[in-house]
Amino acid sequence: MSQQRFPRPATPAGFDPSRASSRAADPAGWRYPADQRDVVHRVIAERRDVRRFRPEDVPEDTLQRVLAAAHRAPSVGLMQPWRLIVIRDAATRAAMRRLAQRERLRQAQRFDERAREFLDKKIEGIVEAPLGICVCCDHGHAGEEVLGRGTIPDTDIYSTACAIENLWLAARAEGLGVGWVSFYRPPDLRALLSIPDRAEPIAYL
Amino acid sequence: MSQQRFPRPATPAGFDPSRASSRAADPAGWRYPADQRDVVHRVIAERRDVRRFRPEDVPEDTLQRVLAAAHRAPSVGLMQPWRLIVIRDAATRAAMRRLAQRERLRQAQRFDERAREFLDKKIEGIVEAPLGICVCCDHGHAGEEVLGRGTIPDTDIYSTACAIENLWLAARAEGLGVGWVSFYRPPDLRALLSIPDRAEPIAYL
Repeated sequence: MSQQRFPRPATPAGFDPSRASSRAADPAGWRYPADQRDVVHRVIAERRDVRRFRPEDVPEDTLQRVLAAAHRAPSVGLMQPWRLIVIRDAATRAAMRRLAQRERLRQAQRFDERAREFLDKKIEGIVEAPLGICVCCDHGHAGEEVLGRGTIPDTDIYSTACAIENLWLAARAEGLGVGWVSFYRPPDLRALLSIPDRAEPIAYL
Repeated sequence: MSQQRFPRPATPAGFDPSRASSRAADPAGWRYPADQRDVVHRVIAERRDVRRFRPEDVPEDTLQRVLAAAHRAPSVGLMQPWRLIVIRDAATRAAMRRLAQRERLRQAQRFDERAREFLDKKIEGIVEAPLGICVCCDHGHAGEEVLGRGTIPDTDIYSTACAIENLWLAARAEGLGVGWVSFYRPPDLRALLSIPDRAEPIAYL
């Protein structure tokens, strides 16, 4: 199984921390120019759940930029609970497809023809795409105190989902297709990727 | 209490659905030009949890664009489970501040001086900001069948968090500060804003 864990990458070109401080004295400087603002709205509007993939490898620098976007998600008390597993190995992806197929068969009677076709396409995408990313949420140690998480323990899951959205938007801008597969049983995925108990698989992309 | 629910707004300028179909024959056309790609990475890097706010009203068209971004989040089976409540009323925001203050007092002994200062600033932000947005997740009816949600019922919460990230990034591009307040008890917020049982408050922004 070839899984790699990536370090958090460097700050991207054009990022100016002095423009990102607390209260903006000059709100005009904090606002993006109209053309750049429109790019942000457009990438949000053009994000799609992709089901068919091209076979070309994802260039390493592109992948790093997309993973960096995920790592910049918000988190309460800077917990940064997301954990990303990149799956390139064809055998692992084929095993993932089997998990999804098994679930599809289990639920076969519940869906009509159109739904079945849709699911088949999604399931083939797992091996058609040159790589998969499993996003997990690390719940941390039970005793650990995190500021602002006292009354809402699920904030770590919210943060992990925000990381997924960042990754997806960045991938869209890079011209990479992303599809979210939610058709498996989480314990199966946990076993396949050797995910430790304290982490919870949130998405297979 | 003045809460408004907004309809889903129209497609933004520059959005071309023909560029957003399933398998890209020409991946170069699906990729953004480098300068636009950099804008996407930059807005992700420049998103901040803002604690001090300017008092000016948020222009209606700006707010609509930001809410539209939230409505474009991904959801399994197009459930679109997010529900947005915009709170302009000063008395409601003051009541929200009281909820957060009460929670701060309850937990006063658990935090050091720096944490207390941080929390005070966040709590003041609730009334300093000209409006608040409460994002809820509508869990729907228990019996309802949603394709792909069979094994992972929390997908609706993941989608709601993705909507929050979209909203936050769009707000950053519009020059609006957003802070996520997680220092309250969800049942208190539910009572304050008359949120029905089937919906769960996920964030106060």
